[in-house]
Amino acid sequence: MNNHSGSAHGDTERVFQALDSFRIELPSWGFSNTGTRFGKFVQPAAATNLEEKFADAGQVNALTGASPTVALHVLWDTPNGVKDAAEVRSLETKYGVRAGSINPNLFQDQKYKFGSLANPSAEIRQQAVAHCIESVEVAKALDSRDISMWISDGANYPGSQSIRRRIDWLQESLKTIHDALRPDQRMLVEYKPFEPAFYFTDVADWGMALEYARSAGPQAKVLVDTGHHYQAQNVEQIVAWLLHLKALGGFHFNDRKYADDDLTLGSIDPYQVFRIFYEIVSGAGDQLNDIAFMIDQSHNLKGKVEAMVQTVVAAQELYAKAALVDQAKLAGLQDECRLVEAEELFRGAFYTDVRPAVAQWRVTRGLPHDPLKTLYESGYVERAAKQRAAKNAGSVSSYA
Amino acid sequence: MNNHSGSAHGDTERVFQALDSFRIELPSWGFSNTGTRFGKFVQPAAATNLEEKFADAGQVNALTGASPTVALHVLWDTPNGVKDAAEVRSLETKYGVRAGSINPNLFQDQKYKFGSLANPSAEIRQQAVAHCIESVEVAKALDSRDISMWISDGANYPGSQSIRRRIDWLQESLKTIHDALRPDQRMLVEYKPFEPAFYFTDVADWGMALEYARSAGPQAKVLVDTGHHYQAQNVEQIVAWLLHLKALGGFHFNDRKYADDDLTLGSIDPYQVFRIFYEIVSGAGDQLNDIAFMIDQSHNLKGKVEAMVQTVVAAQELYAKAALVDQAKLAGLQDECRLVEAEELFRGAFYTDVRPAVAQWRVTRGLPHDPLKTLYESGYVERAAKQRAAKNAGSVSSYA
Amino acid sequence: MNNHSGSAHGDTERVFQALDSFRIELPSWGFSNTGTRFGKFVQPAAATNLEEKFADAGQVNALTGASPTVALHVLWDTPNGVKDAAEVRSLETKYGVRAGSINPNLFQDQKYKFGSLANPSAEIRQQAVAHCIESVEVAKALDSRDISMWISDGANYPGSQSIRRRIDWLQESLKTIHDALRPDQRMLVEYKPFEPAFYFTDVADWGMALEYARSAGPQAKVLVDTGHHYQAQNVEQIVAWLLHLKALGGFHFNDRKYADDDLTLGSIDPYQVFRIFYEIVSGAGDQLNDIAFMIDQSHNLKGKVEAMVQTVVAAQELYAKAALVDQAKLAGLQDECRLVEAEELFRGAFYTDVRPAVAQWRVTRGLPHDPLKTLYESGYVERAAKQRAAKNAGSVSSYA
Amino acid sequence: MNNHSGSAHGDTERVFQALDSFRIELPSWGFSNTGTRFGKFVQPAAATNLEEKFADAGQVNALTGASPTVALHVLWDTPNGVKDAAEVRSLETKYGVRAGSINPNLFQDQKYKFGSLANPSAEIRQQAVAHCIESVEVAKALDSRDISMWISDGANYPGSQSIRRRIDWLQESLKTIHDALRPDQRMLVEYKPFEPAFYFTDVADWGMALEYARSAGPQAKVLVDTGHHYQAQNVEQIVAWLLHLKALGGFHFNDRKYADDDLTLGSIDPYQVFRIFYEIVSGAGDQLNDIAFMIDQSHNLKGKVEAMVQTVVAAQELYAKAALVDQAKLAGLQDECRLVEAEELFRGAFYTDVRPAVAQWRVTRGLPHDPLKTLYESGYVERAAKQRAAKNAGSVSSYA
Repeated sequence: MNNHSGSAHGDTERVFQALDSFRIELPSWGFSNTGTRFGKFVQPAAATNLEEKFADAGQVNALTGASPTVALHVLWDTPNGVKDAAEVRSLETKYGVRAGSINPNLFQDQKYKFGSLANPSAEIRQQAVAHCIESVEVAKALDSRDISMWISDGANYPGSQSIRRRIDWLQESLKTIHDALRPDQRMLVEYKPFEPAFYFTDVADWGMALEYARSAGPQAKVLVDTGHHYQAQNVEQIVAWLLHLKALGGFHFNDRKYADDDLTLGSIDPYQVFRIFYEIVSGAGDQLNDIAFMIDQSHNLKGKVEAMVQTVVAAQELYAKAALVDQAKLAGLQDECRLVEAEELFRGAFYTDVRPAVAQWRVTRGLPHDPLKTLYESGYVERAAKQRAAKNAGSVSSYA
Repeated sequence: MNNHSGSAHGDTERVFQALDSFRIELPSWGFSNTGTRFGKFVQPAAATNLEEKFADAGQVNALTGASPTVALHVLWDTPNGVKDAAEVRSLETKYGVRAGSINPNLFQDQKYKFGSLANPSAEIRQQAVAHCIESVEVAKALDSRDISMWISDGANYPGSQSIRRRIDWLQESLKTIHDALRPDQRMLVEYKPFEPAFYFTDVADWGMALEYARSAGPQAKVLVDTGHHYQAQNVEQIVAWLLHLKALGGFHFNDRKYADDDLTLGSIDPYQVFRIFYEIVSGAGDQLNDIAFMIDQSHNLKGKVEAMVQTVVAAQELYAKAALVDQAKLAGLQDECRLVEAEELFRGAFYTDVRPAVAQWRVTRGLPHDPLKTLYESGYVERAAKQRAAKNAGSVSSYA
Repeated sequence: MNNHSGSAHGDTERVFQALDSFRIELPSWGFSNTGTRFGKFVQPAAATNLEEKFADAGQVNALTGASPTVALHVLWDTPNGVKDAAEVRSLETKYGVRAGSINPNLFQDQKYKFGSLANPSAEIRQQAVAHCIESVEVAKALDSRDISMWISDGANYPGSQSIRRRIDWLQESLKTIHDALRPDQRMLVEYKPFEPAFYFTDVADWGMALEYARSAGPQAKVLVDTGHHYQAQNVEQIVAWLLHLKALGGFHFNDRKYADDDLTLGSIDPYQVFRIFYEIVSGAGDQLNDIAFMIDQSHNLKGKVEAMVQTVVAAQELYAKAALVDQAKLAGLQDECRLVEAEELFRGAFYTDVRPAVAQWRVTRGLPHDPLKTLYESGYVERAAKQRAAKNAGSVSSYA
Repeated sequence: MNNHSGSAHGDTERVFQALDSFRIELPSWGFSNTGTRFGKFVQPAAATNLEEKFADAGQVNALTGASPTVALHVLWDTPNGVKDAAEVRSLETKYGVRAGSINPNLFQDQKYKFGSLANPSAEIRQQAVAHCIESVEVAKALDSRDISMWISDGANYPGSQSIRRRIDWLQESLKTIHDALRPDQRMLVEYKPFEPAFYFTDVADWGMALEYARSAGPQAKVLVDTGHHYQAQNVEQIVAWLLHLKALGGFHFNDRKYADDDLTLGSIDPYQVFRIFYEIVSGAGDQLNDIAFMIDQSHNLKGKVEAMVQTVVAAQELYAKAALVDQAKLAGLQDECRLVEAEELFRGAFYTDVRPAVAQWRVTRGLPHDPLKTLYESGYVERAAKQRAAKNAGSVSSYA
């Protein structure tokens, strides 16, 4: 390795230390069939029910040792609310992964056509609030800390909705939900500049998410989805700001090229992920434990479990690279405005090939040396395909 | 009106002349339920079969007098290929609108997971070619001039597919399809920078579409979908270029703010539509009859027929404004680089309120003065809702 | 006119009322030669000193009656600080326009190479703070309410500067400057996503500007430059938010297509300007008097005075259109989610040709019917060119 | 190293082979002071005349062994045209670097205010053509193969210029220049979507550049500046297309985040550079020698020579990584649509740390092991600063 941190031995130590504490949550919906508005390409091995999602998540965690929790989607995973908690508990034990963040669904029901928590109709807003409070109850029953609020509300056409009045409505809705939290729970407010609403979304950027979080209450924080930004926007700077303001609740990780493409983390711009991780590694301090790392990806073409293992490994590698930066030395060069040297030190950590050190860490922790290879050799996906293929028939298009 | 063209009388004459020849095609899929990858909001009055699509299209044409054709989607509208031609013919007569462009479907079948006409598998490419040739046959049976080729192929991840080799495959596929055209038919090659493929699409921009059209043969032209561009890209310049190269086959009109949002034409940036129309009005010359104006929009929230009427009216108004520009005077100011005066003349036409003149044209042509108002008063949508509601039950999400 | 507000008479009244209170500030730097990094195209009539800038501004105001103040740039206009106040006062009387907002310069001095108020060097930060405090003193001497803070700081390369530590430095600098304000003065914090820094700018978006304003003190507000946004970002939503938070200090108006192009307001997307004005007209309430409307444009090719007159006229027209919207009726349609009708009402106001009503307003207020025409006929620019041509020789490139 | 290519020994061999043929041209203007439109930060060691530029270029080549040519800018470097050829020849001998591509200047003269080769004035077009033909003569005198045509023409405002008629004018101009080429010379047509023109540029994208090249003649090719694209555009796909069409003349390399930022290659998105190089390495075949690799960067803040050395090294490393991909194996995985495995193989080459192998190559080729370190130790920049500081005084802003 290189001079960014002093010695190869020091590097390995840093990698090990970084990986020992690194955990990233899996999304239950990442194991079932997904698609674009033009249709779904169905995978025979995709999970078709909650148990299969837990099984797949457990498999990813067994291979990587870094993903002990799985995010749940209330509508799809616990449609009966708290009544489903017992089943979840049982699956947790069976598959060795726990329930993680709880996700209400505010976009699928027909009544949300013109919005949920920001709908002009007080009645619909109340129904949406009620669904979120039920999600809080599910979280309590499962000892989940975080409720992830993706509010897909917005409008498609100028003039068709009042930007201004919807702010009041949404603030009121979020405050009511916040009041239902247990003191150790958190509400994470996600922002997204477009889609499924195209002219404006009610929570379009980090500034709006932050204001909504603040007006909701002290247990509300901001959730950064790396794909939910404008082109050319500097995501690591937003991360630095949220840390500065002690308002960073966590991440939905994925990658993108044009819009919210939900691609595999680090597949398009790995250097950006490295820079985001560097802001965490260098600036989180005692906030570190309060930052939820979560995956939110749609693998429409890649194998579900395969892609999820790939993602966890990619995240580990990029996090390990970020940990290699000699922060004190970098600060010195930055203070003296020695730009090229600072940049070389910084990017040098990214250019360092940490794969051998990460593999070594795996072995010493009793994990497979090469998780993807072990997955391929295990036959897990082929077995799942056999069991699930019949349930995965059919293709769905948003048109037709 | 204003001094952009001399006199109010002259303006009205220009508006009438422009509207007399302006036709814009309706998409059959614009009358059925559509959504985003997050789900569909179902409309009770949405068309559920081909006859209802023809009925709705006929209604729009009856109100506007400007949309006598309807684009068909082979997979959804004529799933039995040429065998369905007779039914189409009968519907044409019954509802007073003819079949327009024919659209193969290269994105929905499971076999197209990794591409259709550019798939690495020669077998799948041949199947896709066969489907397109069948579409050509449908077009022949319906006396349709244009086959609209939207090739959704591409890849989501760097390295996962060969950009280079797919060019050869796609060129070969398109050439074979072109060979099946009747001499009076055309193949329109559409481009799109992303979605449903996210890392690259095989036909990403007008340059690629043009090359594919050229290598396919002389009856292939480029199809411009106004929403299929990069942010900040100058669409009217591309139109000017395609006219210059005698390669402009037609348009898929819609509007957008961030990605390919498929919003109503002129809803986000009406001045841009005006500028596109101006390039047509001022530069098409004898190519004008060979430019197919088509609507391609997804009204997920707006009423289907209502939004389509609104679109046709918006297109007429913006086309009429473009016709008001005094081209000779503008050329003089441009040549002398009198920027402000040229701009004021040009934008002055856009700022002119043509709505009274357009309404007057409607009345003299025996059409409703205010098509939207007439639609509302007609009870057409309410009747359709009653007849179709039961068939429109259910919600579909790409997740779950 | 149209049914968006009831009657033609009511429309005219609304236009008159809107224009009577509409004022937009001229930038002194808008009258001198400017260019791109590739060079300047010199105009013989460009202002070469403060008196000529006041003369030009006075001319614009005489023609439009809507621009009674001129923004000053401390480094270029009052290089001797408060000592120059007497000269400004005398020019105010002579040319009938008053000094408006005061603009420190934090980007031109060689010492600001790596930043000004956020520079890693405490010494340079203090010098930058001192310059800003001197600007506050200039403002006091001129009875100017607003200090416009464009902080061009940032970094060009990942790793080369600490995003995180610069936040602290800049917050401290701004607080010190805020403490120097008189109780009736304001600090306006401008944001900009890129340029002249390219990797990050220290005040990149409205969220960061807002946080800096808050930590500086209660007299600090956010300044929105319409060209300083990401592509596809919804500017009117940001305006609505800043009004909601009572944090909108004012605007730097201009238009753009790709980056911060500093083009004439309404030249690229007039509908967007209309929408921004609508948020003001409908939502500002008693904040209206605290929103500074200012022009910030670089007319590299257009005649300076000519373009400024064009801009004021364009702003008046778009503001008048926004005033035509029947807000109560619109709110009703929005509440009922009658999307098409709401949109038509809203856009109908934009489509209304207010030019006759605006011209009528001018005549009744003793102003020229057509300001641009009056300017052309006056020979003002030709006289200025004669007097100033010799001083305007030479071309300057950033390269060479 | 990793399994992307088989063995560590094989990797080193590939790196050596790749580097032995890799050459990248330095821009003479990269050694003199540059800035943004807001001003220049002057460097005391910046080159102030042609000899100093050659001295600096020679120094970079001495350290890297990979940059034996320097691009010249006719207006700045050979203002007397062919009369200056003798001096250039003498400097070539003295500093060990040869003249490379020749760059006309079509943006700086006052007469180009409204365009050069596409100006509405036939007289100005002829003057611009004459300047380009003089540049061709300079190239002949210096035995330079390539004339790099950056045509900065365009317009800032809709309606102010005719997009359509300018196409004809520019085609005619380029054809005339092409006719002046010697059979072994080439005209490289560069495209750029915006800046210094903001509404449209006459050569906005690769499609337009290609058409201009074709209509000019067979010796005209397209020049790709990596910073001259829309956000989210896939540059490597354009490269693949130009190779497919045998129309790729060369590159102007740099990096960017938002617009045409002219940052150091690989500083923002090194993975993208790797992908571009991969298209070359895998697809250029016998076109390789006809692809001119050139740097076009403005180091406004970084030390000039320092940044140029850094750039050459970065280019070598990324080119070497691209050479590591096992193309045959990758093609197999792509054909079978084994997405994750193909991606891992591909990105694995990027993740491989080639710095040791590159350093080893340097030593075996008699070059400094660490060029940047050697530069720092040499005192070259400090000596240059002493000699040039007095000539580098003053700051230039485009405002004031």
